[in-house]
Amino acid sequence: MMMGEDVEGGSLGSYQDRPRTFPNMRNKAYTPLIFRILMGINVRVLFILLLLSLGMIFYIGASTSGIIVFVFTVCIISFLLSIYLTKWVLAKDEGPPEMAQISDAIRDGAEGFFRTQYGTISKMAMLLALLILCIYLSVTAFVTVTSFLLGALCSGAAGYVGMWVSVRANVRVSSAARRSAREALQIAVRSGGFSAMVVVGMAVMGIAILYAIFYVWLGVDSPGSMKVTELPLLLVGYGFGASFVALFAQLGGGIYTKAADVGADLVGKVERGIPEDDPRNPAVIADLVGDNVGDCAARGADLFESIAAEIISAMILGGTMSKHPSGFILFPLVVHSFDLVISSIGVLSIRGTRKGSVKSPMEDPMAVLQNFLQSTRWMLYTEQAPSAWFSFALCGLVGIITAYAFVWISKYYTDYKYEPVRSLALASSTGHGTNIIAGVSLGLESTALPVLIISVAIVSAFWLGQNSGLVDESGKPIGGLFGTAVATMGMLSTAGYVLTMDMFGPIADNAGGIVEMSQQPESVREITDVLDAVGNTTKATTKGFAIGSAALASFLLFSAYMDEVSTFAQEPLTQVDIAIPEVFVGGLLGSMLIFLFSAWACSAVGKTAQEVVNEVRRQFIERPGIMEYKEKPDYGRCVAIVASASLREMIKPGALAIISPMVVGQPLLGAKVVAAMLMFATVSGILMALFLNTAGGAWDNAKKYIETGVLGGKGSDCHKAAVTGDTVGDPFKDTAGPSLHVLIKMLATITLVMAPIFL
Amino acid sequence: MMMGEDVEGGSLGSYQDRPRTFPNMRNKAYTPLIFRILMGINVRVLFILLLLSLGMIFYIGASTSGIIVFVFTVCIISFLLSIYLTKWVLAKDEGPPEMAQISDAIRDGAEGFFRTQYGTISKMAMLLALLILCIYLSVTAFVTVTSFLLGALCSGAAGYVGMWVSVRANVRVSSAARRSAREALQIAVRSGGFSAMVVVGMAVMGIAILYAIFYVWLGVDSPGSMKVTELPLLLVGYGFGASFVALFAQLGGGIYTKAADVGADLVGKVERGIPEDDPRNPAVIADLVGDNVGDCAARGADLFESIAAEIISAMILGGTMSKHPSGFILFPLVVHSFDLVISSIGVLSIRGTRKGSVKSPMEDPMAVLQNFLQSTRWMLYTEQAPSAWFSFALCGLVGIITAYAFVWISKYYTDYKYEPVRSLALASSTGHGTNIIAGVSLGLESTALPVLIISVAIVSAFWLGQNSGLVDESGKPIGGLFGTAVATMGMLSTAGYVLTMDMFGPIADNAGGIVEMSQQPESVREITDVLDAVGNTTKATTKGFAIGSAALASFLLFSAYMDEVSTFAQEPLTQVDIAIPEVFVGGLLGSMLIFLFSAWACSAVGKTAQEVVNEVRRQFIERPGIMEYKEKPDYGRCVAIVASASLREMIKPGALAIISPMVVGQPLLGAKVVAAMLMFATVSGILMALFLNTAGGAWDNAKKYIETGVLGGKGSDCHKAAVTGDTVGDPFKDTAGPSLHVLIKMLATITLVMAPIFL
Repeated sequence: MMMGEDVEGGSLGSYQDRPRTFPNMRNKAYTPLIFRILMGINVRVLFILLLLSLGMIFYIGASTSGIIVFVFTVCIISFLLSIYLTKWVLAKDEGPPEMAQISDAIRDGAEGFFRTQYGTISKMAMLLALLILCIYLSVTAFVTVTSFLLGALCSGAAGYVGMWVSVRANVRVSSAARRSAREALQIAVRSGGFSAMVVVGMAVMGIAILYAIFYVWLGVDSPGSMKVTELPLLLVGYGFGASFVALFAQLGGGIYTKAADVGADLVGKVERGIPEDDPRNPAVIADLVGDNVGDCAARGADLFESIAAEIISAMILGGTMSKHPSGFILFPLVVHSFDLVISSIGVLSIRGTRKGSVKSPMEDPMAVLQNFLQSTRWMLYTEQAPSAWFSFALCGLVGIITAYAFVWISKYYTDYKYEPVRSLALASSTGHGTNIIAGVSLGLESTALPVLIISVAIVSAFWLGQNSGLVDESGKPIGGLFGTAVATMGMLSTAGYVLTMDMFGPIADNAGGIVEMSQQPESVREITDVLDAVGNTTKATTKGFAIGSAALASFLLFSAYMDEVSTFAQEPLTQVDIAIPEVFVGGLLGSMLIFLFSAWACSAVGKTAQEVVNEVRRQFIERPGIMEYKEKPDYGRCVAIVASASLREMIKPGALAIISPMVVGQPLLGAKVVAAMLMFATVSGILMALFLNTAGGAWDNAKKYIETGVLGGKGSDCHKAAVTGDTVGDPFKDTAGPSLHVLIKMLATITLVMAPIFL
Repeated sequence: MMMGEDVEGGSLGSYQDRPRTFPNMRNKAYTPLIFRILMGINVRVLFILLLLSLGMIFYIGASTSGIIVFVFTVCIISFLLSIYLTKWVLAKDEGPPEMAQISDAIRDGAEGFFRTQYGTISKMAMLLALLILCIYLSVTAFVTVTSFLLGALCSGAAGYVGMWVSVRANVRVSSAARRSAREALQIAVRSGGFSAMVVVGMAVMGIAILYAIFYVWLGVDSPGSMKVTELPLLLVGYGFGASFVALFAQLGGGIYTKAADVGADLVGKVERGIPEDDPRNPAVIADLVGDNVGDCAARGADLFESIAAEIISAMILGGTMSKHPSGFILFPLVVHSFDLVISSIGVLSIRGTRKGSVKSPMEDPMAVLQNFLQSTRWMLYTEQAPSAWFSFALCGLVGIITAYAFVWISKYYTDYKYEPVRSLALASSTGHGTNIIAGVSLGLESTALPVLIISVAIVSAFWLGQNSGLVDESGKPIGGLFGTAVATMGMLSTAGYVLTMDMFGPIADNAGGIVEMSQQPESVREITDVLDAVGNTTKATTKGFAIGSAALASFLLFSAYMDEVSTFAQEPLTQVDIAIPEVFVGGLLGSMLIFLFSAWACSAVGKTAQEVVNEVRRQFIERPGIMEYKEKPDYGRCVAIVASASLREMIKPGALAIISPMVVGQPLLGAKVVAAMLMFATVSGILMALFLNTAGGAWDNAKKYIETGVLGGKGSDCHKAAVTGDTVGDPFKDTAGPSLHVLIKMLATITLVMAPIFL
């Protein structure tokens, strides 16, 4: 908070007293210590250090398991590939000076915000690490804190990588758009691919390294020390660190991007009637910066966290399986190594047609399925149950089908080719009010099908796993939960490709903004418009993915929590007495947490947007020349307002999410109440996120549908009503919704980490 | 549905082909059979029959328990009082012919819709009764069906009574407003009091009669037959019948009133700029009819159902208590008998000051508390635990405090004296979009405090009950759940007064409409405006009550369900294994049910409102003279459109609510999954209802706040944005929200009734 105020140069007073220059957000004072140390070291020394540590890691990996070495190798190759991709992208030209100038402003804004934001986040992470140390005061504490900090660091790096490439790719895409659509598309895809490789690779590599180090250090499986089945529980801290950072990244970035967007639209589009990304709009740079910090940085951290959470929970459940558990424990790492290979091929093979359409490897599910068959055969074959691996391959198939179904449903509800968005557009013709009512109903209704599908997926994957033939000592079937874990992996098995496509959208959007602002000819705009449209489609698609995998992963984490509590309590916690009032109350509080968190996330955007609206209105009044291109708007003030407000506003919901499970988890109420809270929060969170995402997407596309010329087209009353809907949908789909994905997983990991104090 | 089309004279085709006369909705064909039979009987014969059945009822009551006779006596007295009140109201004059004419149109519309709606509902009830008979095929089946039909009949009667008096009182209030504010206020309060007496009296009397009849008929407590502790389980059908009718009454009425309101406002206020209730608006009569069928009729049925559900669940839990359970079982009936006495005194003592302010007996909590002390001392004193009654009196106190806290919170979030509504109004100044975002956040945030309070109430009442000293045979404390039941009773202990105030609002609103439409002088309008303002405050207050009691009652019903399943299964069902996937899935489906139901309820209003908007626009275009008072609008067409649409639209969400628990409750999935579904639906339902009610109320009052002249006042852009919010809030607070109150209780009663098939 203090830092946020520093950026702005004080609290929000009357505007007249404030400097109107573009704030130099690259101020040295905000560079985190670690960056400064790294930057101070000689490059050659750094390289040798890197090689040395790599060698050590491989050595430790080799003393753990051959599979770990395989995983390391794939990750290193994908890092090398990502270096190739980034070199390829950076070799492209930055276009004429006016483009570079705009791009520089965006980059400065984005990197400045990123550093301030992550400065705040890292301080909070340190504080929490200290707290955890104080609670445990043991070797476990040290292990947990190490994992937590590594997870947080990697998650932060994932976010940084996403933003780093996007602020460099955007101008190159717009410059390439002057030459050909095909080249522009390829730059956007490869930039996305770069960060996807890094993010997925880092998630897998980080967990593999921790696993190997703990394995060797704690002498796992040697007599008298820890069993390998308990090892994954130590990794939970990594997942918690990842989701901790992802939550704040998503909150801060989401508030930033949507406050700027809403503020820019409300005055620019609605009141003044100027187009989107028009250089006359004082909030336009803030809006473009927002795309980078909100969509790229936050999305990188989010997906990193998804993969980490899913791998760790699957490893914990794998630890409960069979007599040769190491295959089951390491299975998730192998699946994601294959994911890296498949996604790399996918990214490299996209060349684009003239019309900018993209052929997705997801449209070729056979390759994904084959990957699964091979991995399961390799890792999950046991002599005890020779056909179990095939049952699990089918679980993976369930996951893949679920992913496709989710994508299809989110398309159905948000694409204007279909009935729902068309009726929403029609509802706009009777006014703002009916548009909002119809959008809210659409969003609420859209929760039904995904819930039915996820229910079928959970039950059928559990059934397949349970009937795989794997039994415990007493002959009871035990594969059920691992079956749902494999289904989750199936769903996330193309995570790399999904992230690539997810990054593609904001890069294309930004490129379009730069083209618009630097007033390029119509033909260039057409190309970026096509790219933008492709980006919108892929973004909607990946949103289905994100919530589907979050739902499954939360169920997994929940199961892992029950499992860990049982381990700590030395007695099975499989039953929770839901007839006692405390448990009901725990559930009430869990669901309430979701509602309150969403409220704060949305109102943060609303409040900040109001500040932007007032600032933009003030500039238009004080500088009447802006509308005739005679005066330059003060972009910097809007950037500063949004940056400081979003840093301030991300604290409240974030703190709520972290503190609530700790408070409810007091010994007085106990582990069962936390279990109820977690379960209710998960269920409500899934539904609320589905509602918010779909309603937001549908409003957006209903507006776009009207802009194609139907129902009066642009500028009509109907269009105005649709713009209102779009504005309302912005914080829904890009702030509260995605933050909820992270929240439900963070709640599960925090309870996992804190389990000992609940007992 | 078929009937709906009959009213309209066919499906919605092109408007030109339709007759534009006011449809005669009093058509004999729609009079339900029972009315026709009753109307055909000679009055004297009817009177003798009534006396005879009264005598029989008293005889049966006397052979059951002295307490039942006491309850009967209080109920009969309150019925006599209500006859006095209605005579007093009807003796007032109907004012000049132009008022009477408008009032007749409203009455015809309301009664016509009521008959058609209840015709549809009664058919569905018959169908369901047959279904239940087929499922059980036993004596229990007959008992359940009898209770169900009696409950449905009483609930329908409660609704009818509410509407019957309000369509007669409205014109008398507006006529009295020409003379004095005080007289107008008194008429409105006494009309509300009349229906409150009848509704509460009928709920208590109906259950008491059923109890007494079953007691005598089944020879309870005689050797070899049923125990008195199992008797309350037979009454569940009554509660189910009541909530079945209440659900459809609330849905149909809620859709009717808000579709008409939204449609009238969107064209009249927003597009044409004419005031509310202006006679030039073709939808104005439909709007006024809506107040009666939506607010009065539906509210009567809703509160009837609340009381019935609460009494029955408390009786079931009372049956599990102590060695002399009959005191505990009959306790709820006694509490509500005292409620009748206190509320009667309250209603009769309200005289009103010149300014129209009302002194509420709720502002005198000592009387309510004393009632509780006496009832608990009388009914709950046992020698086993001599001080237990005092613990339960404290539980009642917890309930009373909870009620006050709820009222205060809903005031804080919806009254423009406080911060939240003021910021909402401020958010309107930056546009439609920020107004909606702020309203949604406000609503979501407002769930937090009530949930915390209800949590504290449940836990503390449970703790008080558990420590009351009552133990079962094995010495385990058993009073906990009954403690929460007593707290619920404490909360509902002024139900009669609450309903009076709830009815007051729409009557005052209607009177204002009649005054406006018959173009009375400014001074008369001022008086009805003041009354309307008082009505809005009391309505907001009672909404806090409604959801608070619904939350507590649902927890009770849930506990009763667990109890009944244990009884049927012959083994205790206190534990539900929430780690197995089916239970998680049950929870997901339960929460999803709430989201889907809300979606359909809101979209029903939205769709119907769109039809109204198009019709009103068409009339303004085709009859340009309307705006200059030269042509009369065709009010009848709007009434017909709304009536048929709301009958059509109430079926889908209603059917969803009834069918889902039956489908999930299939033997395959079992009672535990239903328990999870029920619990998740309850929690999500409470939160969603809180969100919808508060957001709607806050939007309404933010608009009113701006209309007082702040932020630009009426007609400004800010006001337009606030009107959009108000429009969105209408289906939230008056259709979906109140329907959810009923839904969560209906889900609990339906599962209670259907428990045998889940096993």
